[in-house]
Amino acid sequence: MASALRLGVAGLGTVGASLIRLLSKNGDALARKCGRPVVLTAVTARDKTRDRGLDLTGVTWFDDAAEMARSADVDVVVELIGGASGAAEACVRAALTSGKHVITANKALLAAHGVELAGIAEKAGVSLNYEAAVAGGIPIVKTLREAMAGNSVTRVYGILNGTCNYILTRMEREGLSFAECLADAQRLGYAEADPTFDIEGNDTAHKLALLTSLAFGCKISADDIYLEGISSITTADIKAADELGYRIKLLGVAQVTESGIEQRVHPTMVPKTSAIARIDGVLNAVAVDGDFVGGVVLVGPGAGGNATASSVASDIADIARGDIAPALGAPSNVLTDYKRAGMRLHEGGYYIRLSVFDRPGAFATIARCMADADISLESIVQRRRRAPGSLNGAETEVHEAQPVILITYETSETAVRQALEAIEAKGVVADRPQMIRIEKLS
Amino acid sequence: MASALRLGVAGLGTVGASLIRLLSKNGDALARKCGRPVVLTAVTARDKTRDRGLDLTGVTWFDDAAEMARSADVDVVVELIGGASGAAEACVRAALTSGKHVITANKALLAAHGVELAGIAEKAGVSLNYEAAVAGGIPIVKTLREAMAGNSVTRVYGILNGTCNYILTRMEREGLSFAECLADAQRLGYAEADPTFDIEGNDTAHKLALLTSLAFGCKISADDIYLEGISSITTADIKAADELGYRIKLLGVAQVTESGIEQRVHPTMVPKTSAIARIDGVLNAVAVDGDFVGGVVLVGPGAGGNATASSVASDIADIARGDIAPALGAPSNVLTDYKRAGMRLHEGGYYIRLSVFDRPGAFATIARCMADADISLESIVQRRRRAPGSLNGAETEVHEAQPVILITYETSETAVRQALEAIEAKGVVADRPQMIRIEKLS
Repeated sequence: MASALRLGVAGLGTVGASLIRLLSKNGDALARKCGRPVVLTAVTARDKTRDRGLDLTGVTWFDDAAEMARSADVDVVVELIGGASGAAEACVRAALTSGKHVITANKALLAAHGVELAGIAEKAGVSLNYEAAVAGGIPIVKTLREAMAGNSVTRVYGILNGTCNYILTRMEREGLSFAECLADAQRLGYAEADPTFDIEGNDTAHKLALLTSLAFGCKISADDIYLEGISSITTADIKAADELGYRIKLLGVAQVTESGIEQRVHPTMVPKTSAIARIDGVLNAVAVDGDFVGGVVLVGPGAGGNATASSVASDIADIARGDIAPALGAPSNVLTDYKRAGMRLHEGGYYIRLSVFDRPGAFATIARCMADADISLESIVQRRRRAPGSLNGAETEVHEAQPVILITYETSETAVRQALEAIEAKGVVADRPQMIRIEKLS
Repeated sequence: MASALRLGVAGLGTVGASLIRLLSKNGDALARKCGRPVVLTAVTARDKTRDRGLDLTGVTWFDDAAEMARSADVDVVVELIGGASGAAEACVRAALTSGKHVITANKALLAAHGVELAGIAEKAGVSLNYEAAVAGGIPIVKTLREAMAGNSVTRVYGILNGTCNYILTRMEREGLSFAECLADAQRLGYAEADPTFDIEGNDTAHKLALLTSLAFGCKISADDIYLEGISSITTADIKAADELGYRIKLLGVAQVTESGIEQRVHPTMVPKTSAIARIDGVLNAVAVDGDFVGGVVLVGPGAGGNATASSVASDIADIARGDIAPALGAPSNVLTDYKRAGMRLHEGGYYIRLSVFDRPGAFATIARCMADADISLESIVQRRRRAPGSLNGAETEVHEAQPVILITYETSETAVRQALEAIEAKGVVADRPQMIRIEKLS
């Protein structure tokens, strides 16, 4: 058997601890598969005194991650510190420039510096692997980087944030408000005390930035992502979606269009019949549309120590077998520049919910604004609310704002925004219109 | 850029033609990703004169596949001839012994000789890749072989035959009989003129045999698969399944049990809420349960020239990048012997449909037979049929055999078979009992 592959693990949180348990439980089998032993030789974490229930006998402790990365007893540095800069960045840079392979779960770091780091890794002839950075235990990086190599990918999209999906699933199933579901998610540990990064879509955007580069062979461009979170979604939207045959999911979508590549993260109406509509709770799913493969969908746990450790182990196995793939699917010097397709040029169907004052001509005004923007309507749903005191459904009506739902045929973002601005300017709606994009899915 | 990787393609049917179109359309991008050109240098097929609409300028034609496999101008032999012996086997053996990489979509050949061929490939230091042999465009071979390397897999299962899934889906959606749906499948080209190989589960079994080896690190044992096809499934079963919260799918399942590894292909009741239940039509899906990853499910096209060519291209890309992975996920000399868990020891829930003579004590007899076999019942459904001539639902009953549906709690195959034999022996049922296994899925 060949010489052992020596790992240094930086960061002993949930994932780091799971990885060490994985190596202890399945390390022998992994060695048989790879033809060489995989051994943990070094670790580093913030607090040396904390009891993590891990047997670290014979493992060298480092106080500094970058120092560990440069150690002669380490072949592969597993960076599980997190964050786009600081100790994580220093550790990864030190490893690569010392000719060590790097495995990281750090999407923020890669979204910011991925192309540069990939170039450094290539020059050093080492791997920069990050299966764990996107969609937890789902092997989407390997799938895009390797399995889809023969395809011209046209779209990659997915549910990439379990927190948001948990919240939307509970809102739908139990009719609870966004705030109630978020509070529950926090109580159950699915959401952070400050949930902004999850619910406003930033976490999804970091992951999407990596998928975009892998799918289209372009440079990472995380700042060019259109971003809209789920905090504006109401139970009224979810109920209306249900009645119209849709479910609402926070999707990250990267798509080739005539004007470039769209990268967008927003609440999305997906047909109930689509595979992605049925992904509930904290699960993740990623779909790839390619010119030859058609469509494939991968479903699995998007987070959790064990599932994420499984992805780290996949990266370890590749290195142990001697498979040094370019980090972004192609050598960094052949990655094309990212060409952004402006969001205003986005085309698709739209769901629009208006709160319309109940006065003569209001609906005619709305219809006129839509027509002026060249928007055709596929569905219009208006259900008049009754006054709470009305008896036996008698025709006593509430003369306050009434909800009106519109579903448009395919149109442009520009047209929809123009129509909604005109509707607001006419003073026929009580609140800002709600607008949710519809994704065409088979 | 490194020297070109030279392909020889044996077999120019649907997949071969799609592959050549893929190389022509996406070959430049593939070369950029892999760092070297991929060129088609040789082909062989049965009929040289047939016009396939392919530009084969500059490509050497061989009349004999094995001769092409030995040609000095070929680095990789893509075997798309099919069949467990004959030209396909000769071609693959010639290639491997000449030190050429082999890519094949030939599940029958691998089910029969996979371990031996893997050993020959390892000795020669070449790849034996076969992503296209299982589940068409779904990257399940790569996922099991590489992405799940850190897991101890406990179960792998899936819908691996699009023909059967198409038939079952149409039976369910349209209430048509098996025979009607099969005829339609044949008319649409989803089923062969002789459909036995698909509908009796043999095709699924070949694929399952490969997945079992990949998942559990054991030798391929295609003859040890319990096999039951879908031709006995009636619309009554599908309707009863629906009412009880299940759908019926032909699954291939390989599972670790206390007594060894079960390999089984049979119609299966799956909970409607499971991911696998929602795979309709000709789609395939494969699920992997592992100790660290939990569960992942891959969904996509299980057949078709383009999707299958996408998988062949994935194998090409790996070889072009220099990634020579062991064919079965571990070197062939460390694969364990396959230890069969006898089907009689299988444990699970069961659906039983009986046609019970409508006479006093018949049901008591059935209940006694189940109790004698230590089987507890979760559900009993009996709906008395009315005589066709009865007016306004009057209590005129048909005194002929009545359908009775039983759902058991977890029990053993031995117990169920014993109970059903006893029931038959007592003469209380008009037909042979129908029995369908229930798969526990989350």
